[in-house]
Amino acid sequence: MGARTMHDTHEATSCAVAACTEILGAKWTALLIHDLSEGARRFTELEAACPGISPRTLSDRLRALEEHRIVDRRSYPERPPRVEYELTEKGRGLLPVIAEMRRFGHAWLVD
Amino acid sequence: MGARTMHDTHEATSCAVAACTEILGAKWTALLIHDLSEGARRFTELEAACPGISPRTLSDRLRALEEHRIVDRRSYPERPPRVEYELTEKGRGLLPVIAEMRRFGHAWLVD
Repeated sequence: MGARTMHDTHEATSCAVAACTEILGAKWTALLIHDLSEGARRFTELEAACPGISPRTLSDRLRALEEHRIVDRRSYPERPPRVEYELTEKGRGLLPVIAEMRRFGHAWLVD
Repeated sequence: MGARTMHDTHEATSCAVAACTEILGAKWTALLIHDLSEGARRFTELEAACPGISPRTLSDRLRALEEHRIVDRRSYPERPPRVEYELTEKGRGLLPVIAEMRRFGHAWLVD
């Protein structure tokens, strides 16, 4: 999907929407991206930003986001080793999508 | 989800994103909403706007959109009866979400 040219408008829309819903459809993912929009985060900081997430789910989500090139994982050779997660430019490209979803939620899902 | 107050920001974000991905995650749905953004459409017009969709899938998608109150179905007592589908105000509220998804697609999914 991502690797081919999108010359056709309908196909391009389907492709874009499918990619966004695939990435953002997993629970916690939008929250993680939102939290990372404020800067690089360590694993434990992301855990604290998602109250209730299990370490296993968090590492699954981060791995999926790395595979989609939404998040970069950087490890620094310190003692103890420091690992930080950061949004890529592509990841920052999802912020307006999430912002519009939140706007929709405020307009239509509030009592 | 939709019926309760969203006082907590994290919960509100999750809720909004979950609602949007649930609605837009089904194949063809974003295209249908996009096509309906230009005005009321008959079933056969929507079929033509989604080349390759089966009548059964189209009627499933329209029913789901009616349940989410994204689409209104209006039937006119003519001979032969005329049925038209139209976006509700809530449905129009999804257009900026789809627009941002398309923008993301153009920026990140094109060769």
